[in-house]
Amino acid sequence: MASVRIREAKEGDCGDILRLIRVKTAGASRIRKTLGSALRADGFGDNPFYHCLVAEILPAPGKLLGQGIGSKIIKKVAEVALDKGCSQFRLAVLDWNQRAMDLYKALGAQDLTEAEGWHFFCFQGEATRKLAGK
Amino acid sequence: MASVRIREAKEGDCGDILRLIRVKTAGASRIRKTLGSALRADGFGDNPFYHCLVAEILPAPGKLLGQGIGSKIIKKVAEVALDKGCSQFRLAVLDWNQRAMDLYKALGAQDLTEAEGWHFFCFQGEATRKLAGK
Repeated sequence: MASVRIREAKEGDCGDILRLIRVKTAGASRIRKTLGSALRADGFGDNPFYHCLVAEILPAPGKLLGQGIGSKIIKKVAEVALDKGCSQFRLAVLDWNQRAMDLYKALGAQDLTEAEGWHFFCFQGEATRKLAGK
Repeated sequence: MASVRIREAKEGDCGDILRLIRVKTAGASRIRKTLGSALRADGFGDNPFYHCLVAEILPAPGKLLGQGIGSKIIKKVAEVALDKGCSQFRLAVLDWNQRAMDLYKALGAQDLTEAEGWHFFCFQGEATRKLAGK
């Protein structure tokens, strides 16, 4: 079984992180260019907009599913949440991703969309600019 | 029609913000006590966990619905989002809150839960502590 280490991402990981992001909209290659610099600027400035954990896997990965990497990352998130004084933490998951949902439930999560009816609403770029009058 | 001004919350607003938060779980009065200090510590430190807008309404409020306060707050959020370089912003809404959902859609939002199947999963305090082994 592979050895897995979960650690906080460094700025130097942004190239690898970018490779894992799938962009499927029109203009994907243009978006990927700005995404690389945005990942660096937003995550590694004075007041970061996001935090990121990475899983280092040794030896070089073969079959990745079933190694418990998802559970290890979520446990690390739970540690960070407690350290920061959070009373809860939330994940977003697509309803066709049964494997992820089963894992989250097995680890003790509640599906708030199913249980309480929470929906995500999103204002994209064009709607946002129109609202702001720009 | 009342005059409405949307502005960023100050630390001195925390008392009023707390009055607007409904706590319906067991131990609500104990939770309200810690919530007051958490609102101050989390929102007004060096690296705030949340930002908050307040609507000041003059003269003293009578009938509040239909004054367009929701739209004004969302337009302000759109301005802040563009200023911060965000490409989109998201809201969480309960599915029985038809009035809010109709407003968000009228303002150009997309229901990602309906359109793409996004679900909220939540790890509460006890599940988080168990995961972190604490």
